[in-house]
Amino acid sequence: MEIVRKSGPITGKRIAEQLSLSRAALRPDLAILTMAGNLEARPRVGYFINKDMRTSFQSVQAARQKVSEYKAHPIVIQKSATVYDAIVQLFLEDVGTIYAVDENGHLAGVISRKDLLRATLGNKNHEELPISIIMTRMPNIVMIEQGETLLDAAKKMIDFQVDSLPVVKEIDKGTHTYAVLGRITKTTITKAYLEILGQ
Amino acid sequence: MEIVRKSGPITGKRIAEQLSLSRAALRPDLAILTMAGNLEARPRVGYFINKDMRTSFQSVQAARQKVSEYKAHPIVIQKSATVYDAIVQLFLEDVGTIYAVDENGHLAGVISRKDLLRATLGNKNHEELPISIIMTRMPNIVMIEQGETLLDAAKKMIDFQVDSLPVVKEIDKGTHTYAVLGRITKTTITKAYLEILGQ
Repeated sequence: MEIVRKSGPITGKRIAEQLSLSRAALRPDLAILTMAGNLEARPRVGYFINKDMRTSFQSVQAARQKVSEYKAHPIVIQKSATVYDAIVQLFLEDVGTIYAVDENGHLAGVISRKDLLRATLGNKNHEELPISIIMTRMPNIVMIEQGETLLDAAKKMIDFQVDSLPVVKEIDKGTHTYAVLGRITKTTITKAYLEILGQ
Repeated sequence: MEIVRKSGPITGKRIAEQLSLSRAALRPDLAILTMAGNLEARPRVGYFINKDMRTSFQSVQAARQKVSEYKAHPIVIQKSATVYDAIVQLFLEDVGTIYAVDENGHLAGVISRKDLLRATLGNKNHEELPISIIMTRMPNIVMIEQGETLLDAAKKMIDFQVDSLPVVKEIDKGTHTYAVLGRITKTTITKAYLEILGQ
């Protein structure tokens, strides 16, 4: 299956060569895989993966894919910044959520478009507000670690109703100290969804 | 495979009964599906779907699933409303994007959190602005129709960099007249992603 997936369409002869087997020895296995619908065979073309099965490899692969491989660059801002600074940063970087960090670069808060919009409501001087007043703070920030899967990330975003997860590395759990390594968003998941379906 | 997927683990005897076949007639097929790795068999338990294969059904299914089955209720606002009205509506309904409609309920524009935030930038009187000034208008609105797939929707959101697609029914293409039937967002796709991976 691996050989056909990489090199298909491929003839039985060439598969046999790659496995250092005789064609006769291989024939029963190819027959089983074809009858079961995993492979399709066409005369003078060879064996190729059944389209319906192809997606299975991709989705199994995707379930195993780690946050570390998919994370985007985190967009951060100093926690002493103002709401105006945050809105400008958001537009400059064209992201939906930015992360506030302290002087050591450790995660201090999360600011979404929703938080910023809420701050503007009925508040003429919202632009001068410090972001520390409106941001989601520790220990309420929903985070994800490098070794977790995209599946874990998708679950967290649905369960906690957030659009973006900071990818963090724990420095000290007791004091809620985390380094910010990246971001995973619903856009990341939408791209992963396309990948699974072979697009 | 359908029977095992629905009722597995299930014994060969019960599968044969459901298909009105003798166990002897069914045995070669079950043997092939087991050898090919599509089914797993355990003594005294029966047949069940191989875990790696299980996802394939789900993803094939998902690729076939239509926007009509997944769409959420559309959140609409009259196109004569103000930015303040739109922000309030957005918070009341807890959505990221709302659709502006004309007096006939036809789609006139799309207003995202991003559009609203942009309107607030450096504009003390933004709340009194009419949304018709800031919304994305026809013919620039990215839409999706009922009969298209979630895959089509995911592609459009990535290609056009939008977070939400109005689900529409064409009334008159020449005059860009569309009825609004629902919405598909990156949250919809994130949920579909979890579904594909069996979560």
